Amino acid sequence: MTQLTDSRLAWFNGKFMPENQVLISFRDRSWKYGDGAFDMTRTFNGRAFRLKEHIDRFYRSLRYLRLDPGISPQELVDVSEQIVARNEPLRSRAGDWWIGQRVSRGMDLIEDEVPEHSGPNVIVECTPLPLKARARQFRDGLDVWTPAQRRIAPDMLSPRAKTHNYLNMIVAEQSVKAHDPDGWAVLLDVNGNLAEGMGSNIFIVREGQLFTPSERYVLQGVSRQMTFDLARSLAIPVIEGDIDLFDAENAEEMFLTSTSLCIAGVRSFNGARVGDGRAPGPITKRLIDAYIAEVGCDFVKQYLDRLS
Amino acid sequence: MTQLTDSRLAWFNGKFMPENQVLISFRDRSWKYGDGAFDMTRTFNGRAFRLKEHIDRFYRSLRYLRLDPGISPQELVDVSEQIVARNEPLRSRAGDWWIGQRVSRGMDLIEDEVPEHSGPNVIVECTPLPLKARARQFRDGLDVWTPAQRRIAPDMLSPRAKTHNYLNMIVAEQSVKAHDPDGWAVLLDVNGNLAEGMGSNIFIVREGQLFTPSERYVLQGVSRQMTFDLARSLAIPVIEGDIDLFDAENAEEMFLTSTSLCIAGVRSFNGARVGDGRAPGPITKRLIDAYIAEVGCDFVKQYLDRLS
Amino acid sequence: MTQLTDSRLAWFNGKFMPENQVLISFRDRSWKYGDGAFDMTRTFNGRAFRLKEHIDRFYRSLRYLRLDPGISPQELVDVSEQIVARNEPLRSRAGDWWIGQRVSRGMDLIEDEVPEHSGPNVIVECTPLPLKARARQFRDGLDVWTPAQRRIAPDMLSPRAKTHNYLNMIVAEQSVKAHDPDGWAVLLDVNGNLAEGMGSNIFIVREGQLFTPSERYVLQGVSRQMTFDLARSLAIPVIEGDIDLFDAENAEEMFLTSTSLCIAGVRSFNGARVGDGRAPGPITKRLIDAYIAEVGCDFVKQYLDRLS
Amino acid sequence: MTQLTDSRLAWFNGKFMPENQVLISFRDRSWKYGDGAFDMTRTFNGRAFRLKEHIDRFYRSLRYLRLDPGISPQELVDVSEQIVARNEPLRSRAGDWWIGQRVSRGMDLIEDEVPEHSGPNVIVECTPLPLKARARQFRDGLDVWTPAQRRIAPDMLSPRAKTHNYLNMIVAEQSVKAHDPDGWAVLLDVNGNLAEGMGSNIFIVREGQLFTPSERYVLQGVSRQMTFDLARSLAIPVIEGDIDLFDAENAEEMFLTSTSLCIAGVRSFNGARVGDGRAPGPITKRLIDAYIAEVGCDFVKQYLDRLS
Amino acid sequence: MTQLTDSRLAWFNGKFMPENQVLISFRDRSWKYGDGAFDMTRTFNGRAFRLKEHIDRFYRSLRYLRLDPGISPQELVDVSEQIVARNEPLRSRAGDWWIGQRVSRGMDLIEDEVPEHSGPNVIVECTPLPLKARARQFRDGLDVWTPAQRRIAPDMLSPRAKTHNYLNMIVAEQSVKAHDPDGWAVLLDVNGNLAEGMGSNIFIVREGQLFTPSERYVLQGVSRQMTFDLARSLAIPVIEGDIDLFDAENAEEMFLTSTSLCIAGVRSFNGARVGDGRAPGPITKRLIDAYIAEVGCDFVKQYLDRLS
Amino acid sequence: MTQLTDSRLAWFNGKFMPENQVLISFRDRSWKYGDGAFDMTRTFNGRAFRLKEHIDRFYRSLRYLRLDPGISPQELVDVSEQIVARNEPLRSRAGDWWIGQRVSRGMDLIEDEVPEHSGPNVIVECTPLPLKARARQFRDGLDVWTPAQRRIAPDMLSPRAKTHNYLNMIVAEQSVKAHDPDGWAVLLDVNGNLAEGMGSNIFIVREGQLFTPSERYVLQGVSRQMTFDLARSLAIPVIEGDIDLFDAENAEEMFLTSTSLCIAGVRSFNGARVGDGRAPGPITKRLIDAYIAEVGCDFVKQYLDRLS
Repeated sequence: MTQLTDSRLAWFNGKFMPENQVLISFRDRSWKYGDGAFDMTRTFNGRAFRLKEHIDRFYRSLRYLRLDPGISPQELVDVSEQIVARNEPLRSRAGDWWIGQRVSRGMDLIEDEVPEHSGPNVIVECTPLPLKARARQFRDGLDVWTPAQRRIAPDMLSPRAKTHNYLNMIVAEQSVKAHDPDGWAVLLDVNGNLAEGMGSNIFIVREGQLFTPSERYVLQGVSRQMTFDLARSLAIPVIEGDIDLFDAENAEEMFLTSTSLCIAGVRSFNGARVGDGRAPGPITKRLIDAYIAEVGCDFVKQYLDRLS
Repeated sequence: MTQLTDSRLAWFNGKFMPENQVLISFRDRSWKYGDGAFDMTRTFNGRAFRLKEHIDRFYRSLRYLRLDPGISPQELVDVSEQIVARNEPLRSRAGDWWIGQRVSRGMDLIEDEVPEHSGPNVIVECTPLPLKARARQFRDGLDVWTPAQRRIAPDMLSPRAKTHNYLNMIVAEQSVKAHDPDGWAVLLDVNGNLAEGMGSNIFIVREGQLFTPSERYVLQGVSRQMTFDLARSLAIPVIEGDIDLFDAENAEEMFLTSTSLCIAGVRSFNGARVGDGRAPGPITKRLIDAYIAEVGCDFVKQYLDRLS
Repeated sequence: MTQLTDSRLAWFNGKFMPENQVLISFRDRSWKYGDGAFDMTRTFNGRAFRLKEHIDRFYRSLRYLRLDPGISPQELVDVSEQIVARNEPLRSRAGDWWIGQRVSRGMDLIEDEVPEHSGPNVIVECTPLPLKARARQFRDGLDVWTPAQRRIAPDMLSPRAKTHNYLNMIVAEQSVKAHDPDGWAVLLDVNGNLAEGMGSNIFIVREGQLFTPSERYVLQGVSRQMTFDLARSLAIPVIEGDIDLFDAENAEEMFLTSTSLCIAGVRSFNGARVGDGRAPGPITKRLIDAYIAEVGCDFVKQYLDRLS
Repeated sequence: MTQLTDSRLAWFNGKFMPENQVLISFRDRSWKYGDGAFDMTRTFNGRAFRLKEHIDRFYRSLRYLRLDPGISPQELVDVSEQIVARNEPLRSRAGDWWIGQRVSRGMDLIEDEVPEHSGPNVIVECTPLPLKARARQFRDGLDVWTPAQRRIAPDMLSPRAKTHNYLNMIVAEQSVKAHDPDGWAVLLDVNGNLAEGMGSNIFIVREGQLFTPSERYVLQGVSRQMTFDLARSLAIPVIEGDIDLFDAENAEEMFLTSTSLCIAGVRSFNGARVGDGRAPGPITKRLIDAYIAEVGCDFVKQYLDRLS
Repeated sequence: MTQLTDSRLAWFNGKFMPENQVLISFRDRSWKYGDGAFDMTRTFNGRAFRLKEHIDRFYRSLRYLRLDPGISPQELVDVSEQIVARNEPLRSRAGDWWIGQRVSRGMDLIEDEVPEHSGPNVIVECTPLPLKARARQFRDGLDVWTPAQRRIAPDMLSPRAKTHNYLNMIVAEQSVKAHDPDGWAVLLDVNGNLAEGMGSNIFIVREGQLFTPSERYVLQGVSRQMTFDLARSLAIPVIEGDIDLFDAENAEEMFLTSTSLCIAGVRSFNGARVGDGRAPGPITKRLIDAYIAEVGCDFVKQYLDRLS
Repeated sequence: MTQLTDSRLAWFNGKFMPENQVLISFRDRSWKYGDGAFDMTRTFNGRAFRLKEHIDRFYRSLRYLRLDPGISPQELVDVSEQIVARNEPLRSRAGDWWIGQRVSRGMDLIEDEVPEHSGPNVIVECTPLPLKARARQFRDGLDVWTPAQRRIAPDMLSPRAKTHNYLNMIVAEQSVKAHDPDGWAVLLDVNGNLAEGMGSNIFIVREGQLFTPSERYVLQGVSRQMTFDLARSLAIPVIEGDIDLFDAENAEEMFLTSTSLCIAGVRSFNGARVGDGRAPGPITKRLIDAYIAEVGCDFVKQYLDRLS
């Protein structure tokens, strides 16, 4: 079966449809309040990466919000895989996909009115990875800056749930983007230790060991976990704990992990060269190579091929 | 001209239309991230209340988010008034309206794709006030509980901006609603003082004076300001500052203010009777009466008339 | 020797006497200031449980208060065992005992007055366990709520000492008891992580592992230590560390430990079902069974037998 | 009627009796948990000082604890005055009295046992002021030290309620008393500003103005209020707010207020001379003189007369 | 008498000498520990500005450090004025001077060694104002950024003392200077409110009022006080209190004050235009004009004349 | 070659010279701002101790300050060893040396002036250890006190860098020295746990284990690391983590480590005896003996020999 349309398909409350037909009332609570959650994986050559881990994490976010999506984890895995399959004809142009699962709590009832759709809105969708936009950073290394705003503390709203409330990070990032449009903001936590960027975890390397913030104040990244797994196989110790600005200034190497970046080296931190300035550094490079071998897709080449 | 349809009209990016036709892509940043802001006033007998103050506050929220709505405050006032006028035929059934202005930052660009609509999405809309749902509370008084979660601190995301990120309050409220579905959650601030509820400010009365949290940690409520104005005219002193749990337990009277409640008395705080348990208490009652006189609408009667 | 009186015997400053004759001046510092400390163990079929561990912990509390009780730990062990022995005739009706050791700093001197008793007041006493009052909770599971008040921080007054200053927890518990008289309050610590309830420690279960707050912010429960020991023998890993509200919402099982409860399953947390709602859950059940085997007393049956 | 006994009379649950007959079960919650509250005034030449203010403050403490004493404020005023009257024959030797009102929550019920006395225990009592013990300090000035422990934060247990939980201050004071048995500990609050000592408020003088911690973090002292009143009559401005260590080091004068001290000058702070080292300084001296005039009793002379 | 040398004269421990002869042992505590304090005023056309206020503030810093300089305030005023007088021949080239008073605690004793100079080292010195370096900023407005590091909290080391410990601000400024060499860092305080920059205070303007951080967390700037005085004479209200990021984003105008800047308008804050982007704004301009009139020196022209 | 002068030689920017000729302009940033860093080792019988570790730590401090000393670590090791060698003739009188490496950022440029020396000032120097001054403490044990001031938090200025900004600890120590001139101040960290003293780390011993604050909030002492190494060789477990006041009061033994002290027992903490009051305790004694064996120098005897 060939699919000729160039419009991506999404899945919305049980049906597949072109994504531009997935329209939602402005009265949906996720639009009004960000009252929803999501998760996001990527494909490697069209194969979804650690889909089950992502879906499991998604249900932990939903549980924290006390939001019952009305669909089982396995069903959501299946739908996600179908989204990949149905959009496969479009993938060659996209390179590879981000696959998103999103649930909002649905519409508030207005007194005795009967809405067309009650209960949660559930969407599974895909978009092309931003390969071109980030190609420069894979060539040169990332520039990380810590803004003045602190990541929301766990007793206010848990940063461990991946929700539709992103303004803390959006606002913090604005002062960074104002002076470095390609820079990456990594917020400090309530105690002043490194926390996380928007959708990314941070690692530093010192004396042959990896250090990364513990899960207390950050999203439990699936690529972060992948990095733990690769490090174990390479016999590189990983230590989870508080990382402060002293650690960051003295890092020999630094890198970010995220669904889309996988692992990407950092060349500067708050304007100072990291280590000797090479990004990725040698241990980071070993992890990237192991990552590529594990997923069977040279994601670095994917990015660099899009350099304009 | 008569308007026979029973569908409310909303204004969406420049056009009036039935509100159920105001549909937004799930890729809108407000749906994905809560990346938007809103404000909300009400009508009294069909006349919008302090519309300019609300719109001014709205632009402060937008400025904080660095979100340019592409429309001037005066235009937004005009549109809001038209929304009231055009929906007037439906008002007798509604009682009175909530009038909402809402702006999202619009859609993220996906590489080189051209979205149908770029830039912010701007909506002005109305809904019936929840007169029936809250009638019981106007008869008996509100029950206020402080949940364990703290209001987000100002160096993380300012509680002074009225944004589409409400999960801090939504999640906090869940533990209250679990044991008291009609209870009102009022969160403590990062220092453990009373902050605010979802869209409501709190006041206590002691020795003939009003006390309310300072503007540092809460939204600057328009009804809160109205209460200041009424108190001044009644020669009741108002003190803005930290209100702690000791103050709350020793309050002689307590009340909430919000767009919809105007002023509503509190009968219990964390399960203990407030003062002698009458809600509203005598000073609260004077403020309510002055409020009614000022707006020319007996909002208490409006609520009580809907008692089932 | 038979003892016919139905009055329990207590030990007071060196003498055994009916407990209702243990009377203390209102000028005693523990009555005026809570300037004292205590510890509490229980019997299983009349045998005191881990008495030495309790007494050792007691002396750590006293040391922290710089309060010399004028009696050695071994003497206090001996007296405690005698209290059990002398009250044995009353035990069948009681079921089993709480055994308390209590020391106050004694009376403040008033200028040159000579008090009848100077120096610390030392008491060893017993009371029937609240088997009947808690029987329902052993059948159905506990309901845990986190109040808004935070547990006193260690740089103010150490929560690791079991003192006669309990108002922090008493006041916090009041808002919970106001809506759920059978509910259990578990306070958050100064950082917003789970701390402890009044005399009880909290555990959650996830993926076959136990998690419990580290000893930093809580009393080092003897039943908590017993649970560590049982878990080790059952090869269930135990992780001490910060437990936040995200962990609690995502717990598969949850339980409390305390001298009297031993281990008791939790069915709801802040109004949401824990795991699938069974209390105790399967791992909790294994620990309870091991506990019963270890102490040679089916404490669950003891509770359930008193169901009215 | 003459009263020949040298035993002070106290009032206990409705009856006057020699205070050494006021005996309380060790099962009383105030002995076990410090679950009670008190207030304390003094006499000047046998006349109770601002008794009504003290009793009003007492009921605020009780309200915070949700502890109903079962007696009205006016009754407690009356009883307090009778205590003064009945002990008048003993006053010449005492000098003047501390008058204490104390309420505990009473005994916990043990299953179905019937205690002899249920409900709160209420006591009114008096003791001689420590005139001799503090005479040296009135001659030379007080030495104030700030210990490392912080005053309990208001969201844990309010320092504004005068309860029977004093261990925070007792433990903090121990490190001060260890090196300066006559020194006075003044704790810092949770933010590191000066808070209060055990039963005393602190003031500093700079440029003709008084500064004292605001009521947020400290007990609202009646002598503190008296000082406000005197300052107003002397046209000395008083500013309530945060006082930090920089303020303290730069104070020109410093003094403490308390029921028993009334106003007492401080000569050193953390080991450094305050101002030019005179205690009381000139403005403090004016306040003391006005205090003496107001109460009609030279309390300084009272102290100095007891110098040994 | 004419002075032909082009070397500035300084005063060092009692003697005037060319400043390059003021040499200090590396064992001086200010070099090893920053164990010293300073103050800094400027001249306007060769007349020292508010010298007495600066010296008074200097002695408060010294008192906080418990550092006795061994010289009276009046002597230091006199020496400072002589430094101005003696260096007057060099002033035409300099434009105007910064006048610094500096005291270190002197050398640590090494066992029984006898240092050449014991006791504090006291210096009074002058340098040309950086008129040329800052000319651009007076033309275009300042760009202010808030770094991630927080200003040291008052219970650690008081920011109200102007000491020789500047690393907190030096390190914080580095990340700002890394991306904007002409940018000005303004640190947040421990609570996340605006504090101060290196030697500068910050003001915002809204609705005709000035707002500036209270003296709690910042150095009490003499130019800040001058601004208060000018505002009073212009009937512009000044409010001291917490200023958060919401305030800053919504400021209509913003300016810094410092000894050298006097008052200088801010055009951007964290990369966003302040108000309508004019710097100085209209109210700031009125204050600048009044400042110029008061000191009799057009400091703005002084700066602009050096534009290259 | 014999060296007859009794003046110690130091190395200053490339040259050896008598230390009293190492003179620095008062305009050097380390004198004005403490803008520099240092490290300090000691000799044992004239052999420098773990010099490489000290120099490595020094470069971490410099990196944190973004201060390039313009000299390589190996060169600094070499110069340090030469300083020892060249001063060897003076060592017999000194006993042993402290060897210090110090770097300041040099002079600020004043507009277009050309300083004689630009760039950092680098010094290597030695001083006699304070053997006599501390002999008493080695005989009797140290007395440790925790002042009210807290150690600067890592998000303000990292305590892990050994910089020339010592006022936090200098000011904190003053209140301790005021009542106990031989006492040692150990500051609490921002959370109220034990942090460190001026140049010293703290350990407690309980149940055969060592506990010491983790590296988060303290300088990573080289003697602290030495203690870890010795403990490992003696099979004594070491646990790094938060140590609070409860731990300190219940310590069985306590000791400090520092370059000069090596390991020294503590006999009292905040005025209370540590353990049974023997200092050093038995485990501390084993560590001291192992230390002596490892360095081949009985440093305890060195101290005690100087007892006067």
